[in-house]
Amino acid sequence: EEEEEEDQSVPLIPPLNFAMVTKGIYRSGYPSRRNFPFLKQLGLKTIVFLCPEEYSEPNREFLDKCGITLKQFGMVGNKEPFVDISEDVIRLALQALLDARNHPVLIHCNKGKHRTGSLVGCLRKVQQWSLTYIFDEYRRFAGTKGRILDQQFIELFDATNIEVDEKHKPKWL
Amino acid sequence: EEEEEEDQSVPLIPPLNFAMVTKGIYRSGYPSRRNFPFLKQLGLKTIVFLCPEEYSEPNREFLDKCGITLKQFGMVGNKEPFVDISEDVIRLALQALLDARNHPVLIHCNKGKHRTGSLVGCLRKVQQWSLTYIFDEYRRFAGTKGRILDQQFIELFDATNIEVDEKHKPKWL
Repeated sequence: EEEEEEDQSVPLIPPLNFAMVTKGIYRSGYPSRRNFPFLKQLGLKTIVFLCPEEYSEPNREFLDKCGITLKQFGMVGNKEPFVDISEDVIRLALQALLDARNHPVLIHCNKGKHRTGSLVGCLRKVQQWSLTYIFDEYRRFAGTKGRILDQQFIELFDATNIEVDEKHKPKWL
Repeated sequence: EEEEEEDQSVPLIPPLNFAMVTKGIYRSGYPSRRNFPFLKQLGLKTIVFLCPEEYSEPNREFLDKCGITLKQFGMVGNKEPFVDISEDVIRLALQALLDARNHPVLIHCNKGKHRTGSLVGCLRKVQQWSLTYIFDEYRRFAGTKGRILDQQFIELFDATNIEVDEKHKPKWL
């Protein structure tokens, strides 16, 4: 057979820092070949990729094979003192997340800590979560690598006027 | 009005260590009154409560008001050297989690670290996750309080013969 057989005895390997964010939305670090069997059974429709670099060739092939759409919102991470995540790009990425036609969607950057954590933090603001809990979640994934600048970005982000298509917004919104 | 008004300007406060585990299943620490508005919008059908103590009166009232069923699987946490989580009780709790008629369900103990973490770890074994990633997730919630005994319990747990009602099992199984 041409197709790779799926061996039931081999465990499934989620990508680094994988978790479910909310209904229809997952987060993780950069998936690689060994994570493909795991990703396959999520039935993803979209991948929201947050790095500016071109998407890796094996991943592109995997997406083609599974009919998953890549939506790239390239951004550089927050770095003291002068490099900031773009609020405009975050806003566009949020619009993609808040369109249920893209679900289930996996958000990822490289480690699933900073850019992904910042985007998820902004999504939590849209969901009206308290900042205390937003930061607790951010730090759960960033661990000792947590960045004050990311948390400040989330705190200052204005989540009140994201353009959402009422017809296609998720039920939890 | 008799009903408490929900103030849109007050942020929603998830319970300690709250997260979505997989479609239809959430986890957290012990919710209290300030978490009720948040829990309300999850549309829960069931709470799986893992402590042996009686459920708190305000929480019981909240469940009654929202039509949420309490399923209690009381267990003591793993404590060196002689106190162990009961494999039988974990097995019964898993059966409840693997019945989609109970979804959406929130699992909770006191802190959402040890008993909840052990049960979620066993659920991940049912989902055929690699142990490396199961432990990574366990530690993400337990932090510096992670217990080797919990991880050993998860490792040794036999997840191959959980009785599941085929008609009502979740789609992701």
